[in-house]
Amino acid sequence: MSDSSIQHKQHAVVLLSGGLDSATALAWASKEMGWICHTVAFDYGQRHRVEIEASANVARSLGVSDHRIISVDLAAIGGSALTEDIDVPKDQHDDGSIPITYVPARNMIFLSLAAGLAEAVHANRIVIGANIVDYSGYPDCRPDFLDSFAKTATLGTKAGAEGNPFEIVAPLLQLNKSEIITLGLKLGLDYGLTRSCYDPLPDGMPCGHCDSCLFRQEGFAKLSQIDPLPYR
Amino acid sequence: MSDSSIQHKQHAVVLLSGGLDSATALAWASKEMGWICHTVAFDYGQRHRVEIEASANVARSLGVSDHRIISVDLAAIGGSALTEDIDVPKDQHDDGSIPITYVPARNMIFLSLAAGLAEAVHANRIVIGANIVDYSGYPDCRPDFLDSFAKTATLGTKAGAEGNPFEIVAPLLQLNKSEIITLGLKLGLDYGLTRSCYDPLPDGMPCGHCDSCLFRQEGFAKLSQIDPLPYR
Repeated sequence: MSDSSIQHKQHAVVLLSGGLDSATALAWASKEMGWICHTVAFDYGQRHRVEIEASANVARSLGVSDHRIISVDLAAIGGSALTEDIDVPKDQHDDGSIPITYVPARNMIFLSLAAGLAEAVHANRIVIGANIVDYSGYPDCRPDFLDSFAKTATLGTKAGAEGNPFEIVAPLLQLNKSEIITLGLKLGLDYGLTRSCYDPLPDGMPCGHCDSCLFRQEGFAKLSQIDPLPYR
Repeated sequence: MSDSSIQHKQHAVVLLSGGLDSATALAWASKEMGWICHTVAFDYGQRHRVEIEASANVARSLGVSDHRIISVDLAAIGGSALTEDIDVPKDQHDDGSIPITYVPARNMIFLSLAAGLAEAVHANRIVIGANIVDYSGYPDCRPDFLDSFAKTATLGTKAGAEGNPFEIVAPLLQLNKSEIITLGLKLGLDYGLTRSCYDPLPDGMPCGHCDSCLFRQEGFAKLSQIDPLPYR
């Protein structure tokens, strides 16, 4: 194996939003797989900006030495409750259709930026916290999309052209929320550092009523565990 | 045909860097095809920022009413002479290997953002000025990459999931620089508004010596035409 291939095999770029899922994916990549993780959070004009701070805290708690925040102005695109002044639905789960919190092409944009970063740090592996709860609603969390993205990234990058195919690793893909939390707790992840809420209160605390808060609370409740976040 | 499909068929998102190629692609999409064009330029920390202004001028000259500038901080990724303080090679063409001016995954990032914008404006077609001159060196300009990207975007977007497959249109793909210029002149494009230089002088004028300037000047020379840009 060449030096370049060895380097590529030891490193991973991890999408780290600061939410529960991506934090668990990072804990898995770092502690279970032993990869050297380069984490990336995106400042994309989201209303729930407290996530960005949470991602830095989670990265630090897991010993990541290369955490980056990339700014990308998705508000210039529009079309989502997460970047525009559209009400986030409360106290109900989405009905299985594509939700108003969908940001057009968000994961494709984030994965593309992660692929650029992967090239720069000589990694060819991107870890994402996509899972079954999401991909009922968000097309850009589905396995066939992730596979297709890996092929496209291999064709479109210098690393790929030079024989290091891209790999998109989604360790949570088949897990429900309780199973994800179980995995994270087993790995010693402090969920008190994570933030999942789509529409936090002015002081950054979770609303407790959006789709994301509901899934999270139900996940802990099923395990008879207490979510360490201070809901009001 | 549904109203939604008709809308999708009339509109196009055009990547408009402000350079010669993308301006020609826009002229073709707008004047030859008659599509309603939404143009997008990227402020990505490039050294040649005069391009951003050029893109707005080109869009205006071709009657585009929806021109957007999306900021994305590719300098946070690093790894390219276009975003870092690395010398841009002068008075020589690249040797066919991937050049130092390659920005990791740039076109994949730009196309992903364009796909997000396309969703928001109900288009499913993205026009890009990629061509044979580029794709000798840049993997993310090659036809197999562009085809793969279209498949990935169809899988990963709401529009795609709802039956409007993405199409990446690269009208210049098989044209050399002289043929591109011939097409643009036929369509009445004012090349004096475009900017192609990788490393412009402090006043924004082209250096006349980088790979991009050389290709451009040779293209005009072969046609016995004068490049309207004021080289020193």
